Amino acid sequence: MNKHEISTWFQNLQDSICKAIEEADGSGKFVEETWTHTEEGGGRTRILQNGNILEKAGVNFSGVGGKLSENIVKALGLSESEFFATGVSIVIHPKSPMVPIIHMNVRYFETPEEYWFGGGIDLTPHYVVDKDAKFFHQTLKKVCDSYDAEAYAKYKTWADDYFFNKHRNETRGIGGIFFDRLNETREGKSKEHIWNFVQEVGSSFASIYTELLSRNAQKSYNEGNKHWQNVRRGRYVEFNLVYDKGTKFGFDTGGRTESILMSMPPLAEWVYQYKAEEGSEEEKTLLLLKKGISWA
Amino acid sequence: MNKHEISTWFQNLQDSICKAIEEADGSGKFVEETWTHTEEGGGRTRILQNGNILEKAGVNFSGVGGKLSENIVKALGLSESEFFATGVSIVIHPKSPMVPIIHMNVRYFETPEEYWFGGGIDLTPHYVVDKDAKFFHQTLKKVCDSYDAEAYAKYKTWADDYFFNKHRNETRGIGGIFFDRLNETREGKSKEHIWNFVQEVGSSFASIYTELLSRNAQKSYNEGNKHWQNVRRGRYVEFNLVYDKGTKFGFDTGGRTESILMSMPPLAEWVYQYKAEEGSEEEKTLLLLKKGISWA
Repeated sequence: MNKHEISTWFQNLQDSICKAIEEADGSGKFVEETWTHTEEGGGRTRILQNGNILEKAGVNFSGVGGKLSENIVKALGLSESEFFATGVSIVIHPKSPMVPIIHMNVRYFETPEEYWFGGGIDLTPHYVVDKDAKFFHQTLKKVCDSYDAEAYAKYKTWADDYFFNKHRNETRGIGGIFFDRLNETREGKSKEHIWNFVQEVGSSFASIYTELLSRNAQKSYNEGNKHWQNVRRGRYVEFNLVYDKGTKFGFDTGGRTESILMSMPPLAEWVYQYKAEEGSEEEKTLLLLKKGISWA
Repeated sequence: MNKHEISTWFQNLQDSICKAIEEADGSGKFVEETWTHTEEGGGRTRILQNGNILEKAGVNFSGVGGKLSENIVKALGLSESEFFATGVSIVIHPKSPMVPIIHMNVRYFETPEEYWFGGGIDLTPHYVVDKDAKFFHQTLKKVCDSYDAEAYAKYKTWADDYFFNKHRNETRGIGGIFFDRLNETREGKSKEHIWNFVQEVGSSFASIYTELLSRNAQKSYNEGNKHWQNVRRGRYVEFNLVYDKGTKFGFDTGGRTESILMSMPPLAEWVYQYKAEEGSEEEKTLLLLKKGISWA
């Protein structure tokens, strides 16, 4: 498969995910804006705001090319500045604090000399629900197992390390899987086999999240839960602006700011020295925002 | 003057500023937490929350030393890793959107081989008021003029360039002054003359901000103004997490996260593709968030 086929598949993935999310939400509709990159290609940004269950959902496709700046060529360890990058990026902020934030990204990158696939899915519950965390990780493990027996363990650890607010010594959520720079040379697998895996990851998204919505969207909550949700959203902002490589790469390559920052929550709070009450649900969740928990 | 004298002066500056701010606010009180650095020294973090006029004010002193990591030594172009850094950092988020956010930093840094002073004050009005912007810049110009005839123009441009959200093509606010790495070699002035200037900057803070409070704190406002304030605060978060060197240096040197992030607003909003209404006060302010405006 070439970059055009990959890019087209990602566009279709965006379509099917948007359809599934609109159906699950019941009232929200995605509004699309298309944009063009200064050099080659562009994207379709789709944002759903103020739905029934979802407060803000961004499901973006992009396929852009051109020349990378010297700094980025160096940072990526490339020998060429010509590139093409395509993928789908999703961040969903639900209204209810009982429903988790979810993020997914699947992407393909190539230069005239090499290519790689990357991506991942991670879950950020405002309140960790054990059986949901298990369901989430077990589903991802199944997707990984059909690719390689060791993939889940490896990509789960990678997610723990990547989705980590170092300055808080706290994971962003309960992790998931993260992988990058997968290609024939490094994986010892065909490009087609890797591409199949990336497609499986992308295709798993809609059923995972709609299941989590149906399990949690009807739960009741109070003002205290909303406040906690806003504090967790503040940590989400911190991760995305301080550590997220997609945000950095987007800014550095002159990406479309509003599309990159669709990941920002509608509202976020910062409380100086926030302390969860002893024995509270908030404290229980905080104690689970650690690396190395075996959810699957 | 040596590092101890400088550090002591900064502590006294923290005291006098906190006193002036408490008086101006009328009800809020600073709560102090002291902390120690893993290697040498520590700090006094003082936060006032939910005052009469001010929602969250952080006035921090720190004086820390130790060894810098190789990366930072390289980034700063140093030949030594032993360092001492001391200073006062302030960020104030008022309740009312009619009152500006303010930031001030004065600092001193030394290694066994060299030293420098840095600092600045910048103002982020949610609504730009012409005569306040003039007053602010004219006051800073006076402080600069007594140091060097060309200082204001230079440090004003530096602030325009530094307090800039590149990904938004938008300044954080109406700027102010910013300077860094001032020492005898680079300035052709005695260490004492430079130190006097830094002290003047620090000492000017309380009267500048209390004047702006007395001019604006009684103005009425509505929900629309509050919403706009939250959107502007979102941009403030973006600057502080993406570009602010103090945040980065703090995180990189194992600083105290809660003290570093006292700059975060209590609440912030992100609206996809925010558009100010044509002819509105919000639009007028947006048009003034540009580099190169001559306020003084």
